[in-house]
Amino acid sequence: MQIPFIKMHGLGNNYIYLDFFQYTVEEEKLSELAKSVSNVHTGIGSDGLIIIHPSETADVGMRIFNKDGSEGQSCGNGLRCTAKYAFEQGIVAEKRFRIETKANIVEAEVQVTNEKVDQVTINMGKPHLERELIPMQGNPKQHVIGEPFEIQGQTLELTALSMGNPHAVFLVDQINGEQVSQLGPLVEKDERFPQGANVEFIEIVSPVEINFSVWERGSGITQACGTGACAAVVAGVLNGQLKRNESVTVHLPGGDLDITWDADGNVWMTGGAETVATGVFYSPCKVL
Amino acid sequence: MQIPFIKMHGLGNNYIYLDFFQYTVEEEKLSELAKSVSNVHTGIGSDGLIIIHPSETADVGMRIFNKDGSEGQSCGNGLRCTAKYAFEQGIVAEKRFRIETKANIVEAEVQVTNEKVDQVTINMGKPHLERELIPMQGNPKQHVIGEPFEIQGQTLELTALSMGNPHAVFLVDQINGEQVSQLGPLVEKDERFPQGANVEFIEIVSPVEINFSVWERGSGITQACGTGACAAVVAGVLNGQLKRNESVTVHLPGGDLDITWDADGNVWMTGGAETVATGVFYSPCKVL
Repeated sequence: MQIPFIKMHGLGNNYIYLDFFQYTVEEEKLSELAKSVSNVHTGIGSDGLIIIHPSETADVGMRIFNKDGSEGQSCGNGLRCTAKYAFEQGIVAEKRFRIETKANIVEAEVQVTNEKVDQVTINMGKPHLERELIPMQGNPKQHVIGEPFEIQGQTLELTALSMGNPHAVFLVDQINGEQVSQLGPLVEKDERFPQGANVEFIEIVSPVEINFSVWERGSGITQACGTGACAAVVAGVLNGQLKRNESVTVHLPGGDLDITWDADGNVWMTGGAETVATGVFYSPCKVL
Repeated sequence: MQIPFIKMHGLGNNYIYLDFFQYTVEEEKLSELAKSVSNVHTGIGSDGLIIIHPSETADVGMRIFNKDGSEGQSCGNGLRCTAKYAFEQGIVAEKRFRIETKANIVEAEVQVTNEKVDQVTINMGKPHLERELIPMQGNPKQHVIGEPFEIQGQTLELTALSMGNPHAVFLVDQINGEQVSQLGPLVEKDERFPQGANVEFIEIVSPVEINFSVWERGSGITQACGTGACAAVVAGVLNGQLKRNESVTVHLPGGDLDITWDADGNVWMTGGAETVATGVFYSPCKVL
């Protein structure tokens, strides 16, 4: 069974994309297909499968399946790639459009050079600062900004918030890889975060530039985490180190993202999206 | 820069294949291309790159580049995939033909069903049993068959031989994953093997069937090792547990191989080869 595919990545976060404007795969086969195509040994190799599909509520729809076959909610790096594909293939005609995900509908805007999309901006929504919405233990309505946080005999300065998922951001003088790999898993599973947390360590380089390292909930150290970069800039602003309504360049291990927390409270993420390969996948199962 | 590619695997050992009968890439770009295409985050994802090219000394040639960009000598799983491609694309007209590698020229034979190659047999050459040719410390001309081998306070029965690379084969009553992961790296780097060793643990199921687990030199535990499966069957015959000139099914973690050590001394390996995907790779560098 031959399935046309596109492989794209954003900061190294890579997916196999299927264009359901051209054909479809039976619903009950999608999970198995995600597993087989993502396996680098016997498939193509990726972090998962993304379906680009017609939407009734937005200009284009996107569904994401993880490499274990489970369906995810959304993915910042995947949204940028979906936006690139939708514009370059003429699925959308305008440079500003809306993408439906399982979590919500997001606004996207593409920057185009020689008919190719090289940067994409995504509205990542508003952060939630109340403990009950992060969620984090303690007074439900209280915010967590630069609070002392004791872990393994050390006291770090914690700023916590939700970008749809929980983030624990630590401002440090210098990022230390050992600290990320040692404290990341402890903070992730700390009882003060009842749903766990993504853990970010950030280093302020200037009012418009930060270095960033992340321990992702469920994944460990990764090259890039879009919501984590957003959370980092929000935390930097809340602590008076970065400016509201100004673009901040975040240096992630996988590349750079530009993040703006605007006056209306929305966080905008701008970054690249790359097409790696196109072709047909010889699926071991009949899925079309 | 768009580069046509094929991805194939044999027992999960997967490579990106380029057909130099159709086009070529500059020699000095091959190492960089192997690294970029093999990277699953920003490329396609594979164990490396294999070039299928015209040969002056055989029917078709094959060169292999590891994912770190270094050039390898040969690869049993890669030879089967190369043979499948060469026959299906009409590069060779007969079912029996010769493939040139950097190490030597090998004979291949394809089994065809509905014009598709489903099994490939490769002549993996003759084993070398003398210590000086393995190489292993001790009397240079002596063979190593079922010898006691002390390691970490345990005494195992060792049979050692070369299939072009050094192998230490241990016949055990039952394969134990912990034993493979604990003793594998110790035997690999043991001073008695001056060039290191691939380490195989085998369990005789019947005179025509064995279970197999491998610690590959430089790679650790892998799904499949073609020369290791050959070494295992040779060791089983030398120890009187398997028969010369009869096909033995070797159950590797990645799938089965059928191995015959024939009366002339050649070891024949038969196994599958699968086409995963075809398409074009958008190379980040200009290589064509």
